[in-house]
Amino acid sequence: MNPVRQGVDVGGTTIKGLLVDADDTVLEQWTEQTPRDDRTGEQTIATIVSRIEASRWRTGIEAIGIVVPGLVDEDKGICRQSVNLGWKDVAVAGPLGDALRLPIAFGHDVRAGALAEARTGASARTPGVAAFLPIGTGLAAAYTHNGEVLTFGGLAGEVGQIRLLQGPHAGSTIEDIASAGAIARRLGVPNARRATDLVRAGDPAAVAVWNDALVILADVIAWITVTVGPELVVIGGGLSASADLLLPALTQGLAARVADAPLPTIVKAAHGVSAGAVGAAQLAADVLRKGARQ
Amino acid sequence: MNPVRQGVDVGGTTIKGLLVDADDTVLEQWTEQTPRDDRTGEQTIATIVSRIEASRWRTGIEAIGIVVPGLVDEDKGICRQSVNLGWKDVAVAGPLGDALRLPIAFGHDVRAGALAEARTGASARTPGVAAFLPIGTGLAAAYTHNGEVLTFGGLAGEVGQIRLLQGPHAGSTIEDIASAGAIARRLGVPNARRATDLVRAGDPAAVAVWNDALVILADVIAWITVTVGPELVVIGGGLSASADLLLPALTQGLAARVADAPLPTIVKAAHGVSAGAVGAAQLAADVLRKGARQ
Repeated sequence: MNPVRQGVDVGGTTIKGLLVDADDTVLEQWTEQTPRDDRTGEQTIATIVSRIEASRWRTGIEAIGIVVPGLVDEDKGICRQSVNLGWKDVAVAGPLGDALRLPIAFGHDVRAGALAEARTGASARTPGVAAFLPIGTGLAAAYTHNGEVLTFGGLAGEVGQIRLLQGPHAGSTIEDIASAGAIARRLGVPNARRATDLVRAGDPAAVAVWNDALVILADVIAWITVTVGPELVVIGGGLSASADLLLPALTQGLAARVADAPLPTIVKAAHGVSAGAVGAAQLAADVLRKGARQ
Repeated sequence: MNPVRQGVDVGGTTIKGLLVDADDTVLEQWTEQTPRDDRTGEQTIATIVSRIEASRWRTGIEAIGIVVPGLVDEDKGICRQSVNLGWKDVAVAGPLGDALRLPIAFGHDVRAGALAEARTGASARTPGVAAFLPIGTGLAAAYTHNGEVLTFGGLAGEVGQIRLLQGPHAGSTIEDIASAGAIARRLGVPNARRATDLVRAGDPAAVAVWNDALVILADVIAWITVTVGPELVVIGGGLSASADLLLPALTQGLAARVADAPLPTIVKAAHGVSAGAVGAAQLAADVLRKGARQ
């Protein structure tokens, strides 16, 4: 039987599940609400366990990859800190493995998304460095080099945590203004798609909020360009659904900000909002491969 | 006899030479003016050759490491482009090796400085990533990870090339305002040391120019922090001579700009303005070691 892997991407608002076979063909997708105020992570893990238990005998899952936002200790399977989940030192891989008795791969959501885009997505044929920048509930980046994820540690990729010191948004972080979540929140609409609909309709308040975000996102891409030198910048997350509106403005903004130099191309993520879950399933596949070699 | 290596750092205004033995002990230092308007590089190479020829029989040089600013092709020994030198596709390693009949190592000035600091300088005991930021004629960064230089290609490290879009310096690049050269030029003094003397004396024009530079340099370090996540930021170049004035302001500026997170420590380069030449000599040593293994 073709081995089946479950990728799970735990986000601030939803948990995304993706069931893939050995050829990365998607067999099934599911979504659950992320339990609120779950500081111990117990409810979140229970939600995932019951969802997987319901289908595992039918689907024959052989390994699970789970990814979370924040600071993660991949080897120990612990989420050290996650502002979006309200977690601090939450063990994930251990409890999940104990409950399901399956091999568990644990990772970081943005780095997993970068891996997915580099292996089977927008940056699959990029020589050199590719940057993956998902613009969703949060705003962070990860990098791949010849298909391998670059893991630096520290604050690497936490571009949303820059605090603005001047202008009308002084005191806010970049994530507070330029993430998809922030754009929707500032306009009082349920999601970024509704916000971009208003922008397309020429709504002045929406255009103002959108332009605020564009200025910051172009800054982010310019600084990623002069610090890590990517050939390609892959935009993911919820805002990638509005790539037609976003990419030309960001390309122009980047050219205005970086003097006389070959600039990276800015493209849309091939896996869209599923990049993290696809990458999680690929981490699960790596665990099986590693196990088979031992 | 103890093998002797010559490190050569070709800068926009001076060429620095450093003669070291196998224990990295400095035996001799020299400086030459960089020939002006030397678009073919011939005069620059002739200057280096005659300087080395004058002492080689006495000192017994066994290998030369030479580093230049800009975009370099290390394997081919070619400087692809250097704004500071006015070079485009200038072959360096070939002509130098032909003239001196010695093994030549060719590299990038900032990455060589980062290597020197990581091997025998300020970041020698840093786990994880260290960023090296020389503030001199130009402004650029390079990174090491567990003592190895990270080579990304593209515009990686070219932080001075960000163009300011707003404020009194709109249209200028960061390097035009915040490099040591720019600070001196804006005040009409011969070098940054004279500028910082004026700042210490409370000269209002000097304080204004200094504060302009500090704001930008703190931005640079904040963005390096959230993109590559260094544990340590090592300040080099001419401005590192004024570390007592610079480092407290940059440390405070970084804390204001990055929200709630463990921040890198900012320190002075151990090798000061010689970091590039020390790194060049280390590249020469690597070439000898590699040759011995073959």
